Amino acid sequence: MSTAEKTFSKGLEGVIAAQTEMSFINGTEGILEYVGIAIGDLASNSSFEETVFLLWNKRLPTKSELEQFTKDLQSNYSMCDAMKARIKACPVDAEPMHVLRTLVSSMAMDDSTPNENSVEAARDKALKILATTPAVVAGFDRHRRGLDFIEPDTSLSFAANFLYLLNGEKPTDAMVRAFDICMITHADHGLNNSTFTARVIISTLSDMYSAMTGAIGSLRGPLHGGANEGVMRMLNEIPTLDDVEPYIMNKIKNKDRIMGFGHRVYKAKDPRAAELMTLAKQLADHTGNSDLYEKSHAIEQIMEREYAAKGIYPNVDFYSATTYHCIGLKLDLFTPMFALSRIAGWSGHVIEQLGDNRLFRPTTDYVGPHEAPYTPIDER
Amino acid sequence: MSTAEKTFSKGLEGVIAAQTEMSFINGTEGILEYVGIAIGDLASNSSFEETVFLLWNKRLPTKSELEQFTKDLQSNYSMCDAMKARIKACPVDAEPMHVLRTLVSSMAMDDSTPNENSVEAARDKALKILATTPAVVAGFDRHRRGLDFIEPDTSLSFAANFLYLLNGEKPTDAMVRAFDICMITHADHGLNNSTFTARVIISTLSDMYSAMTGAIGSLRGPLHGGANEGVMRMLNEIPTLDDVEPYIMNKIKNKDRIMGFGHRVYKAKDPRAAELMTLAKQLADHTGNSDLYEKSHAIEQIMEREYAAKGIYPNVDFYSATTYHCIGLKLDLFTPMFALSRIAGWSGHVIEQLGDNRLFRPTTDYVGPHEAPYTPIDER
Repeated sequence: MSTAEKTFSKGLEGVIAAQTEMSFINGTEGILEYVGIAIGDLASNSSFEETVFLLWNKRLPTKSELEQFTKDLQSNYSMCDAMKARIKACPVDAEPMHVLRTLVSSMAMDDSTPNENSVEAARDKALKILATTPAVVAGFDRHRRGLDFIEPDTSLSFAANFLYLLNGEKPTDAMVRAFDICMITHADHGLNNSTFTARVIISTLSDMYSAMTGAIGSLRGPLHGGANEGVMRMLNEIPTLDDVEPYIMNKIKNKDRIMGFGHRVYKAKDPRAAELMTLAKQLADHTGNSDLYEKSHAIEQIMEREYAAKGIYPNVDFYSATTYHCIGLKLDLFTPMFALSRIAGWSGHVIEQLGDNRLFRPTTDYVGPHEAPYTPIDER
Repeated sequence: MSTAEKTFSKGLEGVIAAQTEMSFINGTEGILEYVGIAIGDLASNSSFEETVFLLWNKRLPTKSELEQFTKDLQSNYSMCDAMKARIKACPVDAEPMHVLRTLVSSMAMDDSTPNENSVEAARDKALKILATTPAVVAGFDRHRRGLDFIEPDTSLSFAANFLYLLNGEKPTDAMVRAFDICMITHADHGLNNSTFTARVIISTLSDMYSAMTGAIGSLRGPLHGGANEGVMRMLNEIPTLDDVEPYIMNKIKNKDRIMGFGHRVYKAKDPRAAELMTLAKQLADHTGNSDLYEKSHAIEQIMEREYAAKGIYPNVDFYSATTYHCIGLKLDLFTPMFALSRIAGWSGHVIEQLGDNRLFRPTTDYVGPHEAPYTPIDER
């Protein structure tokens, strides 16, 4: 076959690469469901713990199941001493995503059977990684601020415990609920790049740690989870509400990318953005950051005026930036927050992949020379 | 579209996912070329250093270019103090692949600009990772044996330096040449799983460390790089040459997998296996391991008798097991050796991907429910 005859879909756009029972996306109508339940219903009614149970078990838990699952998570909140020592050995100027990738990878060394891939073992490992990662992220942030680690409070929810570990004080209910909704909306999203990475890696029958580590590496890219930091940087560049219009129009004129808009999958408003918009507004009012929300909303209106016809709408990163800021997160903890939540989806996909595995091994279109001679070095 | 109408190629078999100018594989005829040059010609005439230059530059180097490239590698052989401390903090019973994944990830923390993705920066990072990894692998092996690290000898070749770092004495020329040929034959191989992982990760514009870390996690799986350990375990289970026939026939009868045979891509003898067979024989004779080679060769003959018609032939793992054993490598260092060499291919693919990037973001076949209600917890 000649090169010209070989066509392929760059970035595997539109190519089905796996089956899943976890999340369903209809990009045209702006629908996202987890196991059939609309993301809005989950954001309004559910908790992160319940959502993780839903994704892993493909059904909502009973009351006692949810209590047990919550307890299982809580009993894994603490870091081992080796992990604490590793955090203390990290340079204080390291980017948290590089730290997180390295430390999640290192968890395999604390596990006496890191390579077990039965459904039960994979779930245990996923639960351990999910439950401990808040302490790792918060631990590194405290280390770089020269503060001691805080011991987890095993009476708290996942969201509340993380905020407590980070700030050393019990968070307000509004903050906990906001953070919980962020966690819910970010938990799974089809075959996004990091989830695909996790499935590709586990398909060699490697191990949960390898898959999670690879996924974190993917997520940190600016075309993926790193985008929410870009939104915040943009908001910081706009001094006041009045500056929004000229700033955005100038970007449009120069064909600069407007961070937080457009998505490979959605040609309607990302349903997660809709949820987060409401949340961002409430939280901004609650925390005295109304100007930030107003700037965001003004950007959305300009973009809608200019681009809605082209199917460019706010994505999940757009309002999560304001939300994270209002919770008090530093800019470089935005993407780690995304990772914290997405561990639920990644590990669920790993377990699905293990249940019906086939090694991912696509092929290339080779466009180099053939039958080239090995010319001795003196004749080059 | 109904689920039944959606067909997809599991494991992306036969799906073209990228263009490359590095390696060409014709699985039917058993051909492998790097930039057009037959792998046999490279194994006979080239060095690992020259092969890496070839893969990264798409041409063979001149004498002075090769000297400069070798010097650049040599000047990066040494680990920094932070890396030495990290190795010493690793549990001595950790699997080397988990250690390697963690420590390559940690290299990002020693780099003041880990996220730079220009071609020049990506190459510098690849060169640094490639050059330092032998010290990391050998360093961990010495740490777990309770021995001090050895300082690299920057007058030695990549292969010779690794064996020196591991054993503390200058290796024989035969061993160096054998190891060098192993490195050459393992350097690149189309869109194998780990290479694909690296390309998927970098497509978010993440960074070289994230891509290499993910690839190491993929390679350790038993359906990928981990397979060479399985071959050695099998050889160890067969006491003498006379036991080969009943052992293999029993495995065939029980439909057990025979490690080191069969490959998704090759339906003829893997050309790397052909190269490594010759090498394994020479080295086995040289090191007093002739029995190991003879057992391997007997297995190949039985498999040929039973399965050649089905296109099942020895793959790259089959004779690399004997080769690695003869060089004196411990079983759990076989896959790290594979990683050491494949870093060349992984990073070359990362650079190709960055040169013409499109985010990998395939889609799923969703097979779960739709429009499910959120049932309150008391009603479940």
